[in-house]
Amino acid sequence: MVNVSPRDDVFVPHTFPEKQIDLGEITMNFVEAGSAENPALLLVPQQTGSWWSYEPSIALLAERFHVFAVDMRGQGRSSWTPRRYSLDNFGSDLVRFIALAIGRPTIVSGCSSGGVMAAWLAAYAMPGQIRGAICEDGPLFASELVPSFGHNVRQHEVGAMFEMWHRFLGNQWSVGDWDGFVQASAKSSVAVMAKNMFPEPAEPPQFMKEYDPEWAGAFYNGTVAVNCPHDVMLAQVKVPMLITHHMRSVDPESGVLGPGAMTDAQVRRAISLVESAGRRCDYQDHPTAMHMMHQFHPELFAKVVGDWAATLPDTPDAHRPAVPGTGRDAANL
Amino acid sequence: MVNVSPRDDVFVPHTFPEKQIDLGEITMNFVEAGSAENPALLLVPQQTGSWWSYEPSIALLAERFHVFAVDMRGQGRSSWTPRRYSLDNFGSDLVRFIALAIGRPTIVSGCSSGGVMAAWLAAYAMPGQIRGAICEDGPLFASELVPSFGHNVRQHEVGAMFEMWHRFLGNQWSVGDWDGFVQASAKSSVAVMAKNMFPEPAEPPQFMKEYDPEWAGAFYNGTVAVNCPHDVMLAQVKVPMLITHHMRSVDPESGVLGPGAMTDAQVRRAISLVESAGRRCDYQDHPTAMHMMHQFHPELFAKVVGDWAATLPDTPDAHRPAVPGTGRDAANL
Repeated sequence: MVNVSPRDDVFVPHTFPEKQIDLGEITMNFVEAGSAENPALLLVPQQTGSWWSYEPSIALLAERFHVFAVDMRGQGRSSWTPRRYSLDNFGSDLVRFIALAIGRPTIVSGCSSGGVMAAWLAAYAMPGQIRGAICEDGPLFASELVPSFGHNVRQHEVGAMFEMWHRFLGNQWSVGDWDGFVQASAKSSVAVMAKNMFPEPAEPPQFMKEYDPEWAGAFYNGTVAVNCPHDVMLAQVKVPMLITHHMRSVDPESGVLGPGAMTDAQVRRAISLVESAGRRCDYQDHPTAMHMMHQFHPELFAKVVGDWAATLPDTPDAHRPAVPGTGRDAANL
Repeated sequence: MVNVSPRDDVFVPHTFPEKQIDLGEITMNFVEAGSAENPALLLVPQQTGSWWSYEPSIALLAERFHVFAVDMRGQGRSSWTPRRYSLDNFGSDLVRFIALAIGRPTIVSGCSSGGVMAAWLAAYAMPGQIRGAICEDGPLFASELVPSFGHNVRQHEVGAMFEMWHRFLGNQWSVGDWDGFVQASAKSSVAVMAKNMFPEPAEPPQFMKEYDPEWAGAFYNGTVAVNCPHDVMLAQVKVPMLITHHMRSVDPESGVLGPGAMTDAQVRRAISLVESAGRRCDYQDHPTAMHMMHQFHPELFAKVVGDWAATLPDTPDAHRPAVPGTGRDAANL
């Protein structure tokens, strides 16, 4: 079994030209916008999101940043990697991307699972790579199978959705029963969510066509985070973080979380763990914002990112040593 | 929970001066020997082995190579990382070490689990980092809980040993019942192996004192390789490999493998997978050699490494592109 990619005829044109870079295990697809004289900003999409979910906000962000938006492994034009979907492998791809394509200290903003990856980079990137990390409505704890605190992925409406995507679509679309998914989801606990996500259910939307459903299985079965517990990760954050928290609700009957990425208690616990590591953790409550603020409220998102970035010190984690004996640091190799 | 390290009073002096480098998540301990004008050689020890298990062979190798020998996370003076022991995290540490400390194309030789890591680097390192990979008696397949082929870790005598280390010593030595381990192992199926490994059982040997027994749990419970199946990895090898195969035996009654890293059938399958990736995979049978040839037969080991390295092309995986637009490659940042 080797890496595979979605069929070329899946893709559609976009405003920004796409580029690819060889990271060793995968080829990563990305776009770049804005002047290299501006601060570097890396945008990491949510699960099922290709880089172009940021298309509405990239032009706004490019006025103030040198913007890079990527497709993660298993999405878009980046490689699909059967049996290799884990937070640590996602993170290692981003570490390599920053080293090879960006080459200087970077602010990262990720949405949903991409927000978890922003926290991952804040904890585990190479010294000097990250200036600050924005977790845009990321499911801290709530996307783990066995979280240390609060709701797990199967107590979250998205968990039931993941189970159905995995069952009806299959790893690498090997099942491919979209109609079966649509019919089953309409009769399930996630009927409302499915209707919102798929208003024209006759065929899969573009973002789903570009998605490897093995992601869904990795989250539903917990393998994605088995060696990366979120509490351990948050307690090792080394740079300033911002967590934005959007529309959320817990059903009083079933106890199920959704819509929403995490509960109020979970976000408080996340902040407390980052602060226990001696790091600044800012919080913004946006209770009426959609989960993908960057896609549906691009002006607000660009303002949130721009204003917060302006508060960051110029030098990343300045307490940390450069590479011994070389004068180099890992973000500027 | 944050990274921990063994107590400073555990360590003893060695011939080569030790250095440390900050890799982001961990601090890695290493030694360096030989001229920077010689080819770079990275040595990766076996589970429970610190860099100094290579001490007998480093002086011999340093005549021909610029030698780097490391302590992996969870061993020696490198950081211990509770809940974060996985092949992919071990490999990501080595990728960063090559980028930051070696900085040029490297030949890697690893023993046992370090041999699995040599294969990992051959498959998954950044483009241009690896010239060739030596798997010194590495338990391909046989250290997985659910291998695609042949014996699994619990059908291997070392599996029973891992289970006892984990139970009697505990993660980060939190149990610490060495005497209990000695007594239980003497009555178990691994009595002979225990007597060979621990000829003076009154106290733990130095290499065990420097070892985080959470490694043993991660192998016994299969989490170490859950997102890195060996068959998937071997089918993605991108550079020439050498597999050396040492003393091995399968008990005809119990079917248990041991001593030995893998069966003859498993090594044949490994070679076939590397060749299916279009790569050269050499094989050397050393049926009377100890598992750690580098420690117990240093002259033979230095000859094996030196002779094989001489057959490698100068440029690593020359078919692969450098970093687009920069002229850089990842091994020479």
